[in-house]
Amino acid sequence: MTQAGPPPTVLVPWPVGDAPPGLTATVYDGIMDPPADVLGVELYVVPYQSNDTSLGLIGTLPALKSVQLLTAGYEHIIDLLPPGVELHNGAGLHDASTAEHAVALILAAQRELPRWALNQERHVWDRRFTRSLADSRVLIVGYGNIGRAIEARLLPFETSVTKVAGRARRPENVHAADDLPQLLPNHDIVVLVVPDSPQTRGLIGAAELALLPDDALVVNVGRGSALDQTALIAENGRIRAALDVVRVEPLPTDDPLWSAPGVYITPHIAGGSAAFWPRAHRLVNAQLERWAAGEPLINRVATGA
Amino acid sequence: MTQAGPPPTVLVPWPVGDAPPGLTATVYDGIMDPPADVLGVELYVVPYQSNDTSLGLIGTLPALKSVQLLTAGYEHIIDLLPPGVELHNGAGLHDASTAEHAVALILAAQRELPRWALNQERHVWDRRFTRSLADSRVLIVGYGNIGRAIEARLLPFETSVTKVAGRARRPENVHAADDLPQLLPNHDIVVLVVPDSPQTRGLIGAAELALLPDDALVVNVGRGSALDQTALIAENGRIRAALDVVRVEPLPTDDPLWSAPGVYITPHIAGGSAAFWPRAHRLVNAQLERWAAGEPLINRVATGA
Repeated sequence: MTQAGPPPTVLVPWPVGDAPPGLTATVYDGIMDPPADVLGVELYVVPYQSNDTSLGLIGTLPALKSVQLLTAGYEHIIDLLPPGVELHNGAGLHDASTAEHAVALILAAQRELPRWALNQERHVWDRRFTRSLADSRVLIVGYGNIGRAIEARLLPFETSVTKVAGRARRPENVHAADDLPQLLPNHDIVVLVVPDSPQTRGLIGAAELALLPDDALVVNVGRGSALDQTALIAENGRIRAALDVVRVEPLPTDDPLWSAPGVYITPHIAGGSAAFWPRAHRLVNAQLERWAAGEPLINRVATGA
Repeated sequence: MTQAGPPPTVLVPWPVGDAPPGLTATVYDGIMDPPADVLGVELYVVPYQSNDTSLGLIGTLPALKSVQLLTAGYEHIIDLLPPGVELHNGAGLHDASTAEHAVALILAAQRELPRWALNQERHVWDRRFTRSLADSRVLIVGYGNIGRAIEARLLPFETSVTKVAGRARRPENVHAADDLPQLLPNHDIVVLVVPDSPQTRGLIGAAELALLPDDALVVNVGRGSALDQTALIAENGRIRAALDVVRVEPLPTDDPLWSAPGVYITPHIAGGSAAFWPRAHRLVNAQLERWAAGEPLINRVATGA
């Protein structure tokens, strides 16, 4: 009854079937040219594979109030935000994908999946007993949402899980990072899920690797900087590793890590699976409904200064 | 106080730390020569990797009452049993190992682990979006103990699981095999965990594969006879597969299955992992305690005729 002026316009990366009433949604996927008329755009959902054009657009929208990202990382956007524009990230969109890849890496290492893949190439049927995930003592280092998702997936495999975060959180039975020296000797598998920060750089170095029992497995689905690759290579197979992230990406062709014994590498694809899209659609739809209802959007991480 | 005569003797494949009181346990691992004095052996736990010598021993033990196997399969032993001797199998010892390998095969196929392993050989960092296990509709065909263990491991991955057995079991929401034509079109992943039998041979053939949606995945950790390999190859990549068992094992070097598109093969190693040993030890210890207490052993599958 009291609709005043033109409806607010939102820029979305895919067609939204039933935009909530009161919203006009315009599609901009980051590949096509940006729409000609962007004067009314108040909310901009940046396409997932962002580029100079799609990011540059942020500074050209006179009515812009909020930017929604589909990635968890947002540091590269802050400087692009006009004053007062709020930034919302895609926290959680990759959790299911990343957690399942962490388990995939663990199973690949324990059940020697790379060996069978290489043998298949040569048509070789060579049976061997392998390690198991069952009965393993797993240490999750960086116990946030993804760590929690990894734990949920691991527990039915008849494992035990110990949790570590920056600080101890007693109610959740989470240990502090300071406890690592006491914890490492009693675990068979260490899963790293920490972001890059001064506190996490080199978190697992020569001293920490030395504390692990023979044949322990280090899995990294967080950031490459947490693990000292030189120290890992120096272990010469005593410690195994399954790494989705490395210090320099892409890993240089001549890096010795490629053929270090007991090291299995995937090219930073933990978060990049089909699990992403339905979760991204659900987040965008929910944010549009909040927007239409005049409610605050979730996942606010910054405001343009 | 009333101990009469020599204690019964059991033949076990490894040293048992504290044999229950009243038992004399003699170690025979199937590799060493059999013990010289086997006159008193009443219970014989056959070594895991059985051979002609260890199996031949069954017929030479005059006091034998029970044989305990460490495998689920026992058909090859029945004809060796002296009259009245009871046979107990190792049902369940491989469940955790087999279930975790089934999930490993699913994740390997969905997250393209063979691709990354082959790329690593060539030092190639080539990122690609992959399928996910999350959001997949999984059909478990052969819902017994291993099927149940697979279901438990899959559910935290944000999947849905449908169950099929020979006959419907309403309380567990298990469908009959007759329902397969209705179920196959609505599932992305089919896990076969059926034994070899006239009912299961060729259970998934050309007609069944044709009912599956494009890009569906068939996983087999049961017996190779359940899947028509020729029909699978004829799908030419429309249906993917991750197979731990095949019709003829070892798979012949020139079999076209080795390089069929979308087919990933492991050499019948689902049950053969470190998870086996602690479970085998627990079963043997529990059986020895039952024996010492005069209680019936569990897992009885046959009696010598």
